[in-house]
Amino acid sequence: MCAVKKLVGNLMYGQSGGPTAVINSSAYGVITEAKRQNDYIKDVYVMKHGIEGALNEDLIKIDYDDQENIELLKYTPGSAFGSIRHKLPNYKEDDSKYVRLLYIFRKYNIRYFLYNGGNDSMDTCSKIAEYMDTIDYDVRIIGIPKTIDNDLPFTDHTPGYGSAAKFIANTIMEVHYDMLAYPTGKVTIVEIMGRHAGWLTAASALANISGFGPDLVYLPEVPFSIEKFKNDVREVYNKKKQCLVAVSEGVSNSEGVFISSSSGMKDAFGHFQLGGVASKLASTVSNDLGISSRSVEFGSTQRAASHIQSLIDVNEAIAVGEEAVKAVIEGKNKVMVVITRVSDEPYEVKYDFYDLNACANVEKKIPAEMINENGNGITNKFIKYALPLIQGENENIYKDGIQRFSKFK
Amino acid sequence: MCAVKKLVGNLMYGQSGGPTAVINSSAYGVITEAKRQNDYIKDVYVMKHGIEGALNEDLIKIDYDDQENIELLKYTPGSAFGSIRHKLPNYKEDDSKYVRLLYIFRKYNIRYFLYNGGNDSMDTCSKIAEYMDTIDYDVRIIGIPKTIDNDLPFTDHTPGYGSAAKFIANTIMEVHYDMLAYPTGKVTIVEIMGRHAGWLTAASALANISGFGPDLVYLPEVPFSIEKFKNDVREVYNKKKQCLVAVSEGVSNSEGVFISSSSGMKDAFGHFQLGGVASKLASTVSNDLGISSRSVEFGSTQRAASHIQSLIDVNEAIAVGEEAVKAVIEGKNKVMVVITRVSDEPYEVKYDFYDLNACANVEKKIPAEMINENGNGITNKFIKYALPLIQGENENIYKDGIQRFSKFK
Repeated sequence: MCAVKKLVGNLMYGQSGGPTAVINSSAYGVITEAKRQNDYIKDVYVMKHGIEGALNEDLIKIDYDDQENIELLKYTPGSAFGSIRHKLPNYKEDDSKYVRLLYIFRKYNIRYFLYNGGNDSMDTCSKIAEYMDTIDYDVRIIGIPKTIDNDLPFTDHTPGYGSAAKFIANTIMEVHYDMLAYPTGKVTIVEIMGRHAGWLTAASALANISGFGPDLVYLPEVPFSIEKFKNDVREVYNKKKQCLVAVSEGVSNSEGVFISSSSGMKDAFGHFQLGGVASKLASTVSNDLGISSRSVEFGSTQRAASHIQSLIDVNEAIAVGEEAVKAVIEGKNKVMVVITRVSDEPYEVKYDFYDLNACANVEKKIPAEMINENGNGITNKFIKYALPLIQGENENIYKDGIQRFSKFK
Repeated sequence: MCAVKKLVGNLMYGQSGGPTAVINSSAYGVITEAKRQNDYIKDVYVMKHGIEGALNEDLIKIDYDDQENIELLKYTPGSAFGSIRHKLPNYKEDDSKYVRLLYIFRKYNIRYFLYNGGNDSMDTCSKIAEYMDTIDYDVRIIGIPKTIDNDLPFTDHTPGYGSAAKFIANTIMEVHYDMLAYPTGKVTIVEIMGRHAGWLTAASALANISGFGPDLVYLPEVPFSIEKFKNDVREVYNKKKQCLVAVSEGVSNSEGVFISSSSGMKDAFGHFQLGGVASKLASTVSNDLGISSRSVEFGSTQRAASHIQSLIDVNEAIAVGEEAVKAVIEGKNKVMVVITRVSDEPYEVKYDFYDLNACANVEKKIPAEMINENGNGITNKFIKYALPLIQGENENIYKDGIQRFSKFK
């Protein structure tokens, strides 16, 4: 084993992609571990709005004495430092942004670059690392996983998923119980986030262990047929006089066309903005089946609900931040931190690392064995997998009945 | 003072109208107080789905030994015993349902009738009481207030409002923080329940004490002008490059026409079903102002979110149930329990009673002094009024990361 070169300098950290309820817990892990590693890391610079903050030299130098705001990161949703969706070009075609980054890295003596995001963010890390390889500039780059979508490869699950899953499971119980209030049957259709992977929608089924989950679950992994959907709903309704449906925003037909009324808008990564599938299906139920129906969209609340964070998720989000700092100091480069499950009962994980390049732009879908034969529900395999991730309640900090969030200047 | 006749018999309780996060806490208050008053009250019969349960003889006799389900009422949203929207006819025109009720009251020796609901439910109570007055049947009838809408008269506020307000204030903070994640400005429009009274929408402004509330608040009390709305949004956006709007589902123009795309459907009380105003306004912002905009509908979650109950609200909901039982035993009849605020600091209330008839079918709106001059926000008077109502967090009971709810058979 060759000795690892001791690299002394500053650390740059940023958040990218859609926020989660615990991405700031990872920031907490990075900041507090960097402080402990002061033999190697002098200062932590946080990019405002991810990579754009670096390009625009819009950086926050963390003041370790600002204990209050650092502590509150564990309870703060969204992106405390701002996020971004910014796709870097191929440096071989246009290296202007890379040259700018190199200038900033040199100016601030950045030797460690930690980027916290999902698939697209790993793409950003990978491209920067590749460029830096071609230049004689010593910087270690590591990706810290984050996404409510749980669709990153090689990691058992992603930080952010557990809290979103906990919100979804508990809120669908509340919607279910609310639906039961009236004797006249109703079909309630809840739309849940997830473009291509159904992990979030599947999480609604965790509520079934209490008896108040969805009757039907439709995931993007299974081609969606309106006719089959109508038959499924009719069957449940005839039996129960009520029907609760959880549907992913990303369900599409056998030709891959989204069922949702796409707005036709694409984001910076060329992804279509979805939404509206639940109200479309509710109309179908009302019109074609003649059953009263309503739709509920959980919307951005499902990724932002800090008030019902999973404690396991918060602690793991902190841990991936800490592990990333330890790893770069130990010489790791061009990897993403991954969570490896050691055992289900008791639930135990360890932290490993995986090639960044392999992690970029790959979407992990729900495996077939977690989906029921009818394609309208999940199996116990999924419950066994997901239930440990929503355990424990974080003790949120309230003042005057209102949560307290970090406010970095 | 004349002596009160000691009435011994059974108590009938029911829930009516839209559920709240704490209506079951009132059921808990009724049941536990009835148990203590066993000199007067032998058994508690709960109507399944309110008055329809009485008419259909669909009743649950409470088993006081079922401690688990009784305790869980304090944490259970929705209507644990089912609710209903059922408008009784004028008994002078059609007394068939009243005759049926009288039969049921006699059969079960019902001497106390406690009905838990909003304006419409007080109408039901009032009509039954009026009919029973014409018959030689001794029954005392009392209304227990409940509504997230906070629109009942003569009571400082209604049980159910505080928890909905707490959910709304905290969730709008999360949506605000989520919105700040991106540097490119966005207008986010959040639609909040409330047909004719803006109490719930106003509650979003409680988040302003943390700095993460809405920039603009539109209430049904103020005639809504699309042109003024666009000017307001443009002004905030030009300054902040972000704009968070809270809008009531019930805003209407100066001629009283709802801005929402009404579905044209009416409920049993002849109320129009609303919804869709936020998405309509978001389209307006995108199309007319050329600013990226999105809408969020809190939907039924705002009345069902047991996972973020206000502890003050839970305790007051229990108290109004207890007070109703004590009151009927003491001889009170044809009244509604009301909450009277004794002082703001420290917050203190007492329980009084008010003529049922006067309470029925009246909607209490937000007074002018709680609305700002521009008609697009609230004043400190509202904050002072509403802030005490969201204090304290109920310690919800989780098992395996999932809430536990009552299941009465």
